[in-house]
Amino acid sequence: MAGVTTKRRLVHIEDGSQQVRFDTLVAEEPLEIRVDGSALAVTMRTPGNDFELAAGFLLTEGAVERADQIRRLRYCVDDGETQEFNVLNADLSPDAPGRSVAERSFVTTSSCGLCGKTSIDTVRARSTFDVRSDDVTVAPAVLASLPDQLRAAQRVFESTGGLHAAGLFTPDGELVCLREDVGRHNAFDKVIGWAGLDGRLPLRGHVILASGRASFELTQKALMAGIPVLASVSAPSSLAVQLAEESGMTLVGFLRGQTMNVYVGEQRVST
Amino acid sequence: MAGVTTKRRLVHIEDGSQQVRFDTLVAEEPLEIRVDGSALAVTMRTPGNDFELAAGFLLTEGAVERADQIRRLRYCVDDGETQEFNVLNADLSPDAPGRSVAERSFVTTSSCGLCGKTSIDTVRARSTFDVRSDDVTVAPAVLASLPDQLRAAQRVFESTGGLHAAGLFTPDGELVCLREDVGRHNAFDKVIGWAGLDGRLPLRGHVILASGRASFELTQKALMAGIPVLASVSAPSSLAVQLAEESGMTLVGFLRGQTMNVYVGEQRVST
Repeated sequence: MAGVTTKRRLVHIEDGSQQVRFDTLVAEEPLEIRVDGSALAVTMRTPGNDFELAAGFLLTEGAVERADQIRRLRYCVDDGETQEFNVLNADLSPDAPGRSVAERSFVTTSSCGLCGKTSIDTVRARSTFDVRSDDVTVAPAVLASLPDQLRAAQRVFESTGGLHAAGLFTPDGELVCLREDVGRHNAFDKVIGWAGLDGRLPLRGHVILASGRASFELTQKALMAGIPVLASVSAPSSLAVQLAEESGMTLVGFLRGQTMNVYVGEQRVST
Repeated sequence: MAGVTTKRRLVHIEDGSQQVRFDTLVAEEPLEIRVDGSALAVTMRTPGNDFELAAGFLLTEGAVERADQIRRLRYCVDDGETQEFNVLNADLSPDAPGRSVAERSFVTTSSCGLCGKTSIDTVRARSTFDVRSDDVTVAPAVLASLPDQLRAAQRVFESTGGLHAAGLFTPDGELVCLREDVGRHNAFDKVIGWAGLDGRLPLRGHVILASGRASFELTQKALMAGIPVLASVSAPSSLAVQLAEESGMTLVGFLRGQTMNVYVGEQRVST
């Protein structure tokens, strides 16, 4: 288990000039919650207060009616030796509804995509597309223009202020597809589903822009569609950067005005 | 299925004076994605582009390797007559890995809490706490002070810009518990889990503040903890307002400076 934050090298670009910096990223790791030894849920979380997180999840999802139905919370010791800080087991009292909750037909939401997978290795995507060999380059000025284009194209956002957006762009900054949703992951799925139904996968040479933070999940979705460049207007998580690095993607964060941070894959950002 | 937005009555408060307004909310509804008739996932989404959403989900989660393995997408007609726009079935070709994906041990994440439930009625929480009878009142000036308090207490946010927070407050505006996470729902679970493990449930007379938007899921979590007032610095979804109204909660959105919108339960906001 990493700490709550990690330090990463990045390339900061401001008005076309580059500078190497080290910045703090928020940690993101999967936590599997088990009830009496059976997997109940996997959530991507920031490590810390894990027992509270598990107790709150059990309470708000109805697995227990009262906190005293949770008899014990502990990290698993999977092979009898190694403490596993990403798997947590809850022992419930016999009158807790937890067992029947666990036996319900639990399915995933599009906001996880992590189901039945408990370690960072196993949450990795199984993309059949080779993103690393994609040698597209994008000018910083083009990247800087994308958030304004996205906002201008967001009809609904103007009236409600409540929608996330995903925008697919060419390397010249032409908007190819925009989709909106209350969930960032849904907006990504809508864009990628549009491309798939239109026979456009893999999306080589494209840039996808997220209106919020860049999580592990969004990075995985972009990778599964063969998109080499993921840009976001806010911070990436540690695991998003790690996945982008290992997959040969370019990850741009804090895209604001003429400034941006390139966390990995800076060879695709031509200055 | 509602449209992408809905109109709602609200009470706008600015520097202590109240005014009734009508504002647009973004729609949020569950979509169940089935593969060959079996439930694969339930996601809270903004209605629209549902076929793209389902296709993108199947592609990015590895249920299909290529879009042409999706033979047909259609809304279910459950009882032979009624078109059900919140349930969508995908017929996959025999060589798609979708069946084995569906047969994996799928579990939920804390970002859904909607598993095995397919309609708005059945995603409702089963709270044993009576929130409606909670006659606490909170002054607008107190509500206005909460976002600054939350930000001041967020140590990690300052350094990474990537963390959501949930803050639990007394009606006098005293911060009782603050938790942070990459996921808003996790931050809520951590606060509620802390209260549960500390023997403080139900949280009668308390206010919980979300650093982002107020979704259905956050509203449900607050309700399950018996919290009468949910405040957020951004927009609520249509379903969040609907659940708050039906449960007798107070929902405050767009809490910025001395202005805020009270969507339901304005009797608890004393001016």
